[in-house]
Amino acid sequence: MSIPDVKALTFDVFGTVVDWRGSVSREIAGLADERGLDLDADLFADEWRAGYGPGMNKVRTGEWPWIGIDAIHRRRLDELLVQFGVDGLTEEETDHLNRIWHRLDPWPETVEGLTRLKSKFIISTLSNGSVALLTNMAKRAGLPWDCVLSSELSGHYKPDPESYRKAAELLGLQEGEVMMVAAHSGDLRAAAGTGLRTAFVKRPDEFGHGTGLARTPDLEGDPSFDFTANGFTDLADQLGC
Amino acid sequence: MSIPDVKALTFDVFGTVVDWRGSVSREIAGLADERGLDLDADLFADEWRAGYGPGMNKVRTGEWPWIGIDAIHRRRLDELLVQFGVDGLTEEETDHLNRIWHRLDPWPETVEGLTRLKSKFIISTLSNGSVALLTNMAKRAGLPWDCVLSSELSGHYKPDPESYRKAAELLGLQEGEVMMVAAHSGDLRAAAGTGLRTAFVKRPDEFGHGTGLARTPDLEGDPSFDFTANGFTDLADQLGC
Repeated sequence: MSIPDVKALTFDVFGTVVDWRGSVSREIAGLADERGLDLDADLFADEWRAGYGPGMNKVRTGEWPWIGIDAIHRRRLDELLVQFGVDGLTEEETDHLNRIWHRLDPWPETVEGLTRLKSKFIISTLSNGSVALLTNMAKRAGLPWDCVLSSELSGHYKPDPESYRKAAELLGLQEGEVMMVAAHSGDLRAAAGTGLRTAFVKRPDEFGHGTGLARTPDLEGDPSFDFTANGFTDLADQLGC
Repeated sequence: MSIPDVKALTFDVFGTVVDWRGSVSREIAGLADERGLDLDADLFADEWRAGYGPGMNKVRTGEWPWIGIDAIHRRRLDELLVQFGVDGLTEEETDHLNRIWHRLDPWPETVEGLTRLKSKFIISTLSNGSVALLTNMAKRAGLPWDCVLSSELSGHYKPDPESYRKAAELLGLQEGEVMMVAAHSGDLRAAAGTGLRTAFVKRPDEFGHGTGLARTPDLEGDPSFDFTANGFTDLADQLGC
């Protein structure tokens, strides 16, 4: 399929580029081991992530003023440390743990796929993670972004339309010259609503494997999306990269 | 010298990272050749650049509302095309010419130096060029930024203090954890005024070679700067990268 007008791809990050659940769960399990705690690290990860949308929604509806992602993660973490019986962490240790979201691991094919896509398109983040979080993550994981864009730069979290429009503006492009890449249909529908093109990427393991998952991965997409792919290397194939 | 607190280096770009005068002059000379025009391409470049500071100052003082760097360059270009007798360009050709500032060539040691500095520090632009300009430039020239920051993100051109403070904020760092790298003392003094550390890099050829230069390069720096270096590889040596 030809998409002659698209010059930049903007990527959702949590779940689309990186495996947040596996990364958080591994670090929590390590912490539990160190401290001799018996806790369900997968559940801790799921519960932490479950605080993310509601926190952002409070900002989006104006109930909270703009606060960054680190503060949203921290409010939830402080609740979970009590709930899971993790005590005795110093402020420095708690802050370090909260920044686990800055050091998430990419999916195995992420770097290869991004590198191929970069050969033909400007590739940028467009995440609700902050610029600092995304920059630290990229440096650690070797994510080859051309630039690091965040909802933070518009003061509006996705899926508010301002976040997508601001990204196009900062790239110096029309909305139709930008394609949003995400594993989540809601993100893509909102992007399409502001005129961006859309590429849906399936990430079947975002919420783990097997049964009893907190959420079911979004594997259907929507026939209205411009592309549907089984990962970034498949998307690169489809885009001729 | 040890600088244990510095985590990120932010770079001035025009003159510090890229050779704007040589790049603009070469493209203008090519255009003149194509069209059989007899014009002084170095002078065209100097005169174009001479409109940059005054244009930004009109924004800084509030005489003009915020306008981006492309618009500032374009206002000056439109004057120069008349002054140098270049006519008959289509709007598309004029726009392409104006975007020469998106495709400037780096100094010969820039990429090697940045790559070494990146091994130890977050490296970012902090330029009055727009995010789009800096992203396009980096992609073409292979500049390995960890992130692309611009005065545009604060709505205040350097040397307004807001531009430096916003960069530190977006990097999630204290001002003293950021070091500004520039070939221009004024930029560094303003950065120091907001608490950033400073590295002065000599770029003796910024305004060309020989006599009759429009401006004299800043080669003295200031004893108050934390570092003074003969380029990025020298700075990398000094910083142990």
